[in-house]
Amino acid sequence: MAIRIAVVGLGKIAHDQHLPAIAASRDFELVAAASLEGTTPGVPVFRTIDELLASGIAIDAVAMCQPPQARYEAALKAIRAGKHVLLEKPPGATLAECEGLVRLAEDTGTTLFAAWHSRYAPGVAQAKAWLAERKIVSAEIVWKEDVRRWHPGQQWIWQPGGLGVFDPGINALSIATAIIPQHIVLLDGELEMPANRAAPIAARLQLVDMDGAPISAVFDWRQTGPQSWDIFVDTADGRLELTQGGSKLRIAGEERALAPEAEYGDMYAHFADLVRAGESDTDRSPLRLVADAFLRSRQHQTDAFID
Amino acid sequence: MAIRIAVVGLGKIAHDQHLPAIAASRDFELVAAASLEGTTPGVPVFRTIDELLASGIAIDAVAMCQPPQARYEAALKAIRAGKHVLLEKPPGATLAECEGLVRLAEDTGTTLFAAWHSRYAPGVAQAKAWLAERKIVSAEIVWKEDVRRWHPGQQWIWQPGGLGVFDPGINALSIATAIIPQHIVLLDGELEMPANRAAPIAARLQLVDMDGAPISAVFDWRQTGPQSWDIFVDTADGRLELTQGGSKLRIAGEERALAPEAEYGDMYAHFADLVRAGESDTDRSPLRLVADAFLRSRQHQTDAFID
Repeated sequence: MAIRIAVVGLGKIAHDQHLPAIAASRDFELVAAASLEGTTPGVPVFRTIDELLASGIAIDAVAMCQPPQARYEAALKAIRAGKHVLLEKPPGATLAECEGLVRLAEDTGTTLFAAWHSRYAPGVAQAKAWLAERKIVSAEIVWKEDVRRWHPGQQWIWQPGGLGVFDPGINALSIATAIIPQHIVLLDGELEMPANRAAPIAARLQLVDMDGAPISAVFDWRQTGPQSWDIFVDTADGRLELTQGGSKLRIAGEERALAPEAEYGDMYAHFADLVRAGESDTDRSPLRLVADAFLRSRQHQTDAFID
Repeated sequence: MAIRIAVVGLGKIAHDQHLPAIAASRDFELVAAASLEGTTPGVPVFRTIDELLASGIAIDAVAMCQPPQARYEAALKAIRAGKHVLLEKPPGATLAECEGLVRLAEDTGTTLFAAWHSRYAPGVAQAKAWLAERKIVSAEIVWKEDVRRWHPGQQWIWQPGGLGVFDPGINALSIATAIIPQHIVLLDGELEMPANRAAPIAARLQLVDMDGAPISAVFDWRQTGPQSWDIFVDTADGRLELTQGGSKLRIAGEERALAPEAEYGDMYAHFADLVRAGESDTDRSPLRLVADAFLRSRQHQTDAFID
């Protein structure tokens, strides 16, 4: 029987990814939605999670697709109502929020899934398997894109808790923490803050694994032209190049054959597996590194950013 | 048999608290120290943790009292050498560091103790016991002190990772997370950053417990005259007032009898219990809230601070 799911937050990511992935899945049936703005055909759309939960519509699970600043309160209500919850990345605006939801889901026996969609990019599983047997010498993360192209007019992303350039950067960190075999620690960083914004437009981080192998990361939202979403890992057996957001993989100079892109489809398949197994998947390590970057980095003011 | 302990970092907190507490304890015997500056009579003092560990001196445990930015690397080496480790607060400059040490200590079977000294203040245990049976209505944390008096000339505290006013503020959060029965989440905050410093001189935080009870916190390092280290908790059964850094407790208007102050003595007694039981105590919730405050707060520039 399909898992009856509601989507909360009918913004760009819901329309671009979640609704198509749910529509294409045999595991899920969309039964309702809630959103202050936006709509989707064929199902009732409520304004709030409260109205959704009070509607009497039978719902097994809720996908939280609203901006991260609003995610905790809605997720809290859904878990308390006994619903399984999928959290778009980042799983919250703070780590303590996530921790609270994790504990609550454990207490109520519901499934909580901190979904990191980039981990389902075509090359990630092969990259992870190859690196699992190896010691890394160094790694380099380069994630540069044009904020005007990917986040047109999104104001929440520049608010505290919206993460700024870490909104895409956390995708890179979600891949890096998945494929690099050891735990990763942040040593130092620099954040560039536009004079008129509360979140960084660029960041440089120095990280290391537990053996001290250096991992550099550069995130920048001012890259026009070709976009860079690349991770390079050097090992004694050669260089791994996971590029184009995880959709291309080259190891020791050899291009690897990969399945077509199906990030959100595979992510929802994993959510269905979790629900049916009665398990949760709540890795917070990418958000922990971002919080550490804010805690540990020096901030510099840079030019004002106008949409 | 006494636990043979070395102290790393012979700065203000080691001389004020750790060395006297170790000297007064029957559980511990000080056998060595390491510090780039400073000395202590009666034991060999090495310059680095490497020299200390290579010295051949039999050591069971190491207390890490250096500035937090240097704590991770030294703790990593000590745990790898099979030593039990006590971490002064905060347990690291980042959360990922702490997580890495926790995993390593689990793997090696050594004791790791993230020591929050303020939790051993005289009134904390009674406050915790009284609140454990109650639902809180609201709480207020007021932690205001004179940085020139308590941190004379300490430059590390103003560097990234030094936490600024959260260095004392994290003591308040360590008490609040211990006595307030529910998990605490940060909703919003404002940080005041001196124009010439990389860490805040003041902060205002809005927090809530999982039932939404509001908890406000104000930290300020510019308070001359009487100092404020107070936590007030309102419940249906009256107000709890834990003041003077946890050394005075009044409940529903009635002053409670408390034992004399013995924070570091009790903290080391707990460390000895952990070592003998083969257990760890690695609560990171106060540092998690501080990282969340940096992640989630709006920052404002304020007047330059001259020591």
